[in-house]
Amino acid sequence: MRPYELSLAEAADAIGAGHLSPVELTDSVLARIEATEPQLNAYAAVTADLAREQAAAAEREIAAGRRRGPLHGIPMALKDLIDTAGVVTASGSAVRAGRVPDRDAAVTARLRQAGAVLLGKAHTHEFAFGLTTPQTRNPWAPDRVPGGSSGGSAAAVAAGAATFALGTDTGGSIRVPAALTGTVGLKPTYGLVPREGVTALSWSLDHVGPITRTVRDAGLVLDAIAERRADTSGDGCGTHGAGGTGVSGADDGGPDLRGVRVGVPVDYFFDRVDSQVEAAVRAALDRMAALGARLVDVEIPLHRYVQAAHWGLMVPEATAYHAEQLSRTPELYGADVRVLLEAGALLPAVDHLRAQRARTLMRQEWGRLLDKVDLIAAPTVPATAATAGQATFTWADGTAETVADAYVRFCAPANITGLPALSLPVGFDRDGLPIGMQLIGRAYGETALLAAADAYEQAFGPAPLAEVHQPTAAATVSASTPSALPLPASRT
Amino acid sequence: MRPYELSLAEAADAIGAGHLSPVELTDSVLARIEATEPQLNAYAAVTADLAREQAAAAEREIAAGRRRGPLHGIPMALKDLIDTAGVVTASGSAVRAGRVPDRDAAVTARLRQAGAVLLGKAHTHEFAFGLTTPQTRNPWAPDRVPGGSSGGSAAAVAAGAATFALGTDTGGSIRVPAALTGTVGLKPTYGLVPREGVTALSWSLDHVGPITRTVRDAGLVLDAIAERRADTSGDGCGTHGAGGTGVSGADDGGPDLRGVRVGVPVDYFFDRVDSQVEAAVRAALDRMAALGARLVDVEIPLHRYVQAAHWGLMVPEATAYHAEQLSRTPELYGADVRVLLEAGALLPAVDHLRAQRARTLMRQEWGRLLDKVDLIAAPTVPATAATAGQATFTWADGTAETVADAYVRFCAPANITGLPALSLPVGFDRDGLPIGMQLIGRAYGETALLAAADAYEQAFGPAPLAEVHQPTAAATVSASTPSALPLPASRT
Repeated sequence: MRPYELSLAEAADAIGAGHLSPVELTDSVLARIEATEPQLNAYAAVTADLAREQAAAAEREIAAGRRRGPLHGIPMALKDLIDTAGVVTASGSAVRAGRVPDRDAAVTARLRQAGAVLLGKAHTHEFAFGLTTPQTRNPWAPDRVPGGSSGGSAAAVAAGAATFALGTDTGGSIRVPAALTGTVGLKPTYGLVPREGVTALSWSLDHVGPITRTVRDAGLVLDAIAERRADTSGDGCGTHGAGGTGVSGADDGGPDLRGVRVGVPVDYFFDRVDSQVEAAVRAALDRMAALGARLVDVEIPLHRYVQAAHWGLMVPEATAYHAEQLSRTPELYGADVRVLLEAGALLPAVDHLRAQRARTLMRQEWGRLLDKVDLIAAPTVPATAATAGQATFTWADGTAETVADAYVRFCAPANITGLPALSLPVGFDRDGLPIGMQLIGRAYGETALLAAADAYEQAFGPAPLAEVHQPTAAATVSASTPSALPLPASRT
Repeated sequence: MRPYELSLAEAADAIGAGHLSPVELTDSVLARIEATEPQLNAYAAVTADLAREQAAAAEREIAAGRRRGPLHGIPMALKDLIDTAGVVTASGSAVRAGRVPDRDAAVTARLRQAGAVLLGKAHTHEFAFGLTTPQTRNPWAPDRVPGGSSGGSAAAVAAGAATFALGTDTGGSIRVPAALTGTVGLKPTYGLVPREGVTALSWSLDHVGPITRTVRDAGLVLDAIAERRADTSGDGCGTHGAGGTGVSGADDGGPDLRGVRVGVPVDYFFDRVDSQVEAAVRAALDRMAALGARLVDVEIPLHRYVQAAHWGLMVPEATAYHAEQLSRTPELYGADVRVLLEAGALLPAVDHLRAQRARTLMRQEWGRLLDKVDLIAAPTVPATAATAGQATFTWADGTAETVADAYVRFCAPANITGLPALSLPVGFDRDGLPIGMQLIGRAYGETALLAAADAYEQAFGPAPLAEVHQPTAAATVSASTPSALPLPASRT
């Protein structure tokens, strides 16, 4: 196995055991970047010299017996929305071309403190305001989008061009690209991870979180970037981290989900879903049941308000953030982002307040729902990766939906409610495109959420790395094509 | 001294010592209501029979040795915005005429639990959306307003027609009528007192608090209605209450303010202020200095945003609350309130968000200011009570200002920042109209705020009760008339 193929935990174990050096790992990943970037374009900027310096410094510290922890010497990509002192951070926009922050974002500083090595800045949909990341291609199919807005981060991790990455998520921007690239994406509980130095899209919906190869990796990264919170768990010292706390495999019986009540939505989350995606998620649910989980049918509260509440919160907040700049240099914004920002100026305050009130009710009702079950399982997105330039999906019921609306639809509830949600790969469609399952947990319940996902992954394995070769055979099949196949084969 | 003349603390002491019975006290106050209501019209409804029953029950319990505390058997008025199970609660509006809630508001339930006796519901400006309470007259001058929106509550307390009362405050609605009637009004820290069952004006600016005869009384009431908060003081069990914790008079030297740094604004709070009001407040500051306080000149941060931020928060929130009702029965709203609610529908969400962002900055800056001083002292309002029907004040600089804008101007900062603020009487103008001084303290710093005010009051006495006789001599003097008098005499 070449070093770039290792998961974060595997690489950390190898470094800890002295079998792998940070320089060797970083060189391997940089070489992988070089090999894959012509096709992927996952990076807005690769900081190879800086990465080699940081890796060499990590190597010296570790050799001197001063290893800081599992992230020490591990190469990572940061979404270009996240400030890095001295390294261009342009948020994917001509508005900020060449902008070099003089301070690290809070999460950058934490990762620097943990000893992680910066490979570069990963492409984002302009100002995180979109679900495709058109600059970047999906490593599983070069004619497909990687999803967005953290598309560069997910593509890099899926291809082995970063051992882990950070993304941001306002309506699915971590989970959507994770689902479309076969990676693990965690949107933590609202407020758990600090956002200072991360360009805002919507203050009340934005989250920062990891995109990784495995669930265990996601826990390791969360441990490094989360703020400790006094108001959360019983132990008084934080709430997160599956790093060493996962229950799976804790006894000799191997991973299991005994005692875990998994809520399976009877509505909303299985409406207008591609049949192959639905089949893959239902097969994953069966696998969770086989591990001992109890599947419980649940009704999703107030789901008819999801889209209006999400729009009513996000769009005016984005407009308020950009108002001054937009009035000065409207021509520097991309057309898709500009029209959304201009639309946001037209929304009355009472509608924004109506969205806030709907959110309050949704939080209450989701809280009650999660008194009855431990987590909710559902598709992350209703379709696999769209073709670059594709505008809409057409569903089996004949209705059409924009790609953005479709990708946001199942992710937005966790942004509105602030609940932690994770996407993990559960198979591939007939075109070889990854399918993601979303698990939504209790507020500050990251430990339990990661433990459940980890048990699944321990039993059935993570997705393999994308090979990033040539286009797949039939890359233009519509997502709405009815499936005549049995369950998609898991590649694990 | 007749029982209705007693302060809450005096009455409680007399009841505790067996020198006064709740029935005797309640009867005395009910008789005072009967004598003053023809002139004042402080009450929307007087619940005399209920009050006598509750007083008799309190008397029996106390006689049986089961006294609940200082509020047991004390007669009070509740602003008509506050739900009382089985008693009409109409919020001063034809929209809710005859509405009888079936549940108590949280504060009503707490006061019921403490054994307080309900005299009736005090008039409010319609839906608390105004600063005058036109239904009610000022007990110090029958041609003057009592201020608002808690005008009935303040008028009743000032006249001895309630031993204490509750009001609500969104832009000064406790402090304005307290200042204009010579009573003490406390707007506690945002969130300290629960609002369930209290009709909303603006969710992000509304506060419930006491209007009382003395500072000590305000502490006693706050002790009964506040929620205990874990995130506040060092003792881990709440933050408030001067009830037994006031520092003044604690040693043999009498009340003092040694070690207290009092910030005296060099801007904003002394702009466009009636000269008699300014003189009275500056005299009170000198008295505080004489008690040992250190007066420190301070600049008020971001004061040019106060009015826009307050309007931008309050008006659309009020509109959002009333939108449905307003669309159904616009004709049932008063003209002044209706135009504000209709105006609120026109405000864009981006402006509401701009107001929220201004608030965040103001909170930060006021927090820094209150690192340097212990409290801020300033006029509560820039003028004494307006004549009923008066539309504007004209200031010495020739500018005119609506009565509502003038009364909100110095109160709004504490609503925007959420900081606790108190108005206490510091003298009278030449027309015999009360003048209030405002003290603004640190978040959850009610104990220190009340202690400082209590020291002042211990040294210089509270205002006397209003006699509620005939109109004063020259009730039409403009508030902008320059004062040729020396400092107004304190009546204490």
